[in-house]
Amino acid sequence: MDGPELWVELGQQFRVDSVRCAAAAKSGHPTSAMSGADLMAVLLAKYFRYDFDNPKDPANDRLVFSKGHASTLLYAMYKAAGVISDEELLTYRQFSSIFEGHPTPRIPWVDVATGSLGQGLPYGVGMGIAGKRLDKTDMRVWVLVGDSEIAEGSQWEGFEHAAYYELDNIVAILDINRLGQRGETMHGWDLDSYANRAEAFGWHTIEIDGHDFEQIDQAYGEANATDRPVAIVAHTIKGKGVKAVENQNGWHGKPLPDPDEAIEELGGHRNITIEVTKPEQMGRKAEIENGRLVLPRYDVGDEIATRKAYGEAITAVGKARGAVVAMDGEVSNSTFAEIFRDAIPERYFEMYIAEQQMIATAVGMQVTGWRPFASTFAAFISRAYDFIRMSAISRANYCLSGSHAGVSIGEDGPSQMALEDIASMRAVHGSTVLHPCDGNQTAKLVAKMADRDGIVYMRTLRPNTAVIYDADEEFEIGGSRTLREGDDVAIVAAGITLHEALKAADELAADGIEATVIDLYSIKPLDKDTIQSLAMPIVTVEDHWAEGGLGEAVLAALADSEERPRLELLAVREMPHSGKPAELLAAAGIDAEHIAQAARQLVGAAVSA
Amino acid sequence: MDGPELWVELGQQFRVDSVRCAAAAKSGHPTSAMSGADLMAVLLAKYFRYDFDNPKDPANDRLVFSKGHASTLLYAMYKAAGVISDEELLTYRQFSSIFEGHPTPRIPWVDVATGSLGQGLPYGVGMGIAGKRLDKTDMRVWVLVGDSEIAEGSQWEGFEHAAYYELDNIVAILDINRLGQRGETMHGWDLDSYANRAEAFGWHTIEIDGHDFEQIDQAYGEANATDRPVAIVAHTIKGKGVKAVENQNGWHGKPLPDPDEAIEELGGHRNITIEVTKPEQMGRKAEIENGRLVLPRYDVGDEIATRKAYGEAITAVGKARGAVVAMDGEVSNSTFAEIFRDAIPERYFEMYIAEQQMIATAVGMQVTGWRPFASTFAAFISRAYDFIRMSAISRANYCLSGSHAGVSIGEDGPSQMALEDIASMRAVHGSTVLHPCDGNQTAKLVAKMADRDGIVYMRTLRPNTAVIYDADEEFEIGGSRTLREGDDVAIVAAGITLHEALKAADELAADGIEATVIDLYSIKPLDKDTIQSLAMPIVTVEDHWAEGGLGEAVLAALADSEERPRLELLAVREMPHSGKPAELLAAAGIDAEHIAQAARQLVGAAVSA
Repeated sequence: MDGPELWVELGQQFRVDSVRCAAAAKSGHPTSAMSGADLMAVLLAKYFRYDFDNPKDPANDRLVFSKGHASTLLYAMYKAAGVISDEELLTYRQFSSIFEGHPTPRIPWVDVATGSLGQGLPYGVGMGIAGKRLDKTDMRVWVLVGDSEIAEGSQWEGFEHAAYYELDNIVAILDINRLGQRGETMHGWDLDSYANRAEAFGWHTIEIDGHDFEQIDQAYGEANATDRPVAIVAHTIKGKGVKAVENQNGWHGKPLPDPDEAIEELGGHRNITIEVTKPEQMGRKAEIENGRLVLPRYDVGDEIATRKAYGEAITAVGKARGAVVAMDGEVSNSTFAEIFRDAIPERYFEMYIAEQQMIATAVGMQVTGWRPFASTFAAFISRAYDFIRMSAISRANYCLSGSHAGVSIGEDGPSQMALEDIASMRAVHGSTVLHPCDGNQTAKLVAKMADRDGIVYMRTLRPNTAVIYDADEEFEIGGSRTLREGDDVAIVAAGITLHEALKAADELAADGIEATVIDLYSIKPLDKDTIQSLAMPIVTVEDHWAEGGLGEAVLAALADSEERPRLELLAVREMPHSGKPAELLAAAGIDAEHIAQAARQLVGAAVSA
Repeated sequence: MDGPELWVELGQQFRVDSVRCAAAAKSGHPTSAMSGADLMAVLLAKYFRYDFDNPKDPANDRLVFSKGHASTLLYAMYKAAGVISDEELLTYRQFSSIFEGHPTPRIPWVDVATGSLGQGLPYGVGMGIAGKRLDKTDMRVWVLVGDSEIAEGSQWEGFEHAAYYELDNIVAILDINRLGQRGETMHGWDLDSYANRAEAFGWHTIEIDGHDFEQIDQAYGEANATDRPVAIVAHTIKGKGVKAVENQNGWHGKPLPDPDEAIEELGGHRNITIEVTKPEQMGRKAEIENGRLVLPRYDVGDEIATRKAYGEAITAVGKARGAVVAMDGEVSNSTFAEIFRDAIPERYFEMYIAEQQMIATAVGMQVTGWRPFASTFAAFISRAYDFIRMSAISRANYCLSGSHAGVSIGEDGPSQMALEDIASMRAVHGSTVLHPCDGNQTAKLVAKMADRDGIVYMRTLRPNTAVIYDADEEFEIGGSRTLREGDDVAIVAAGITLHEALKAADELAADGIEATVIDLYSIKPLDKDTIQSLAMPIVTVEDHWAEGGLGEAVLAALADSEERPRLELLAVREMPHSGKPAELLAAAGIDAEHIAQAARQLVGAAVSA
């Protein structure tokens, strides 16, 4: 069996297997799988180039199910490719199974988790840029996109960047089945509405009947021969093949009413397996060259902004490690990612003001082993929070830096002040959250970031701060630094507030109060031993909202210890506005004077108790 | 002076005032203001309809500076309108001033804070829908959009929804000055690239020279006569009027090098004031009718999902209060916002899968006094986090609900499980975070939400839970409910874990351990008195990551109290996957058995201590 005859059978097999999976699990999205089945049959049988034994090889095509809820279709493809058994397939959605409701990289052939809609195309764009500009292979990225999810703005960041980066290796397959979760989509079967938009964004588009195998075949052929990103806009039918559900509202995310009848209507259970074609040549064509790491060094007493040290340090790391890449959201002259751009332009990627695409690019690039450092203002990382959340489910490894943290930025006002980034980034699974206070510490931590798994976040400052650490000092992720030792009160701080804490300790010393000062530059993971050893009242101080930040991290570290010292949590509690940094730190109650005052009160309370 | 002669002078005055502001503040974005000055001169002098004495009147036009960094242009317009003095203008960016680096509603004529780029158009769309469909006035929304920020996907959600809602009352003024913060934009002065995209999204577009007053005038006239949303795509010059900076890279966000010379080049300091035309008729045309509140009631012992109770309760509140509106992100059959849609279709707005636009619509509508209830899966609220962050700076008042919280959703897997929403929503200034456990509690809290200022978030559950509260019980925001009283250990829970906590208390009672069980349904604000009165070990338990959630909120409440009991924080700590809810609660260590085990250990430790 070959060609159209095979494709027909394969499409029906995908449908039958989707129906069976959902019936076994008593949940799932079989009708969403059924609309895309024929499109995937032709792809798998004729066009997809993939070595299932070496899934991360950069020569492989990539297949992204942006409509992740159609996961049974993907899993049915694995069965047809002979890499999973029918029994494995039918474990779908069970606690013990890797075949989850939505695909995740627990499955070796899934590169990115999907299921939050509107993300697959941006991830695919990241993979496409990696393939074209970094790995330099003939790989192709195929993204199966649902119609409902095209309403997400993030999709248009993907369309825009694919065209800008002239990706001739990406094919978006738009499965226009008309029906969303709760009814008709905005554009129904108006294929032109999608095609016109994609064309305006610089894509080549092909409108087809997504159940006509000849048209599907021709479209893929044309896509392969086109030197632009291609969108295949396919008219499909949700629930195609089973009259009881075909093109009917109300069957999203539900098993079919009579699975046995449906399977019969679809021509019965099949077990076709096919040999998926491998890429002609494996491996990347580009060589990754490494060198010696020469981090920037700053003299104690000099002043430098940690954001600038970040820019210099990623450049040093980039020179030493050929796998390091950098990207930024059109603020590289503020984050100082421009230093990397100017030094290593071939590994720098301008993402313009599109933070979701920036994260998606990082996630897409790390699939084949690149180590991205992405940066923007810390406030704007909130723009990509869902992408960051999902990238944790993708088990992605990348570094992220947010500059201009907190009220210490001054006059630009609250829209530019990140005051929630520690909270939001701590609440990302497996994340690391660092907040250095000086240039040398920043440089040493940047070097560590490049080796760390998960999403590794560094918060940097706009203003210059004094260099307080010698360039030879080492800093571990998960560590802390005790800068002053005293028995009366401990002040725990990081970033800008560490400098205020040191000033406060001086003030307190003048009053005869001996303060311990701890630089908690690693907020997650946190140096629990040091925190738990503090047998004295504690003041925590952070340029961040009171919720979910450094102070609560310290409280959590103390929660189950025997001795739980009293703790005063200093943080920003009223909406800040424009002003000078010093005015704003004072107004927020997080400057040296307020720290000293809080410390005095705690010490007084401890004495009187 | 009138017509073109006035416009020329007014445009120059706006430039001069921008240059003066930035010179006085030693920071700011005068070159970004200078490109849009002529566009705003004609608008203010001829087309804008506004009563500065009644800024929130629904008959007023709305002006949104999406490119919020051009704030000096807006403030210069206020001076020209005679509503602020030259002295007030020159307080720009000072600590004592309301004229911040980026506009905020501390200024009475600013409706929404901008400064995170890409947000103004979506807010304007929300205002436009309110004007057309709710207030039913002849208002018009004018949005000044920068070219760099058009790369944000959220803009295209705005374009899409404006066309879908057939907004003939919105005009986007695209200030195409070619230069972003760090260099040229993706499309430079290729006006067609913007116009083609907007046309494909269903807008009428007009390309003009943004410094040609006749063209500007004609474009506004044409916009007013068009029955579709209109984009005026204006070729402009950054820094226009001052040769030293005109169309040059490197002058973004900086005062001019020689302000005095620049002012002279611009024709000197002017103090023109104009009378801005008021709307012909003030007030909204639609009447808001209120009725009696009849909340749904559930019988104790029955089962209902809190998400369903939410849907029924917002419908009841909507029937009682004519100002309540609802919107949802294409999941209304899951969040049960569909109950409201079916009952009160004229006040329901489908936002499709575009969460950023959903929040922006809520923010836009509350400007003229509507009370939005927006809903989607709690996981996807992360998609709009930057909009939520900014809406706090906008001092916006609206309600938000996230359904399908936590691992208790079961088989769909982690992409659909909100595990960070409590942390992220707590870290929003002035927010409220509620997490009810049963239907009656949900209904009572929904009624309270409608009266509360700020961003009021309710987290709801997918599975049915037992009704444990009588329908006559009252629940206050900021309160808690002590469901069991015991002296050995306290269990603090909310939502699904409250039910597990009750089961655990039964298990513990069988062992002779008397547990207090607290339903902490109001996580922010939190019932500090009750928490601080717990003179016994505490177990907190939440279906959420360990960071920034209920447990840390409890720790923060205890931080400065005299007695700080030992606390065990039970939360999700490993990435969950698909499975049955009970399997997943057990695997995460947050089910009754794990709660009882943690309680036993704490009690044992307390006894042995």
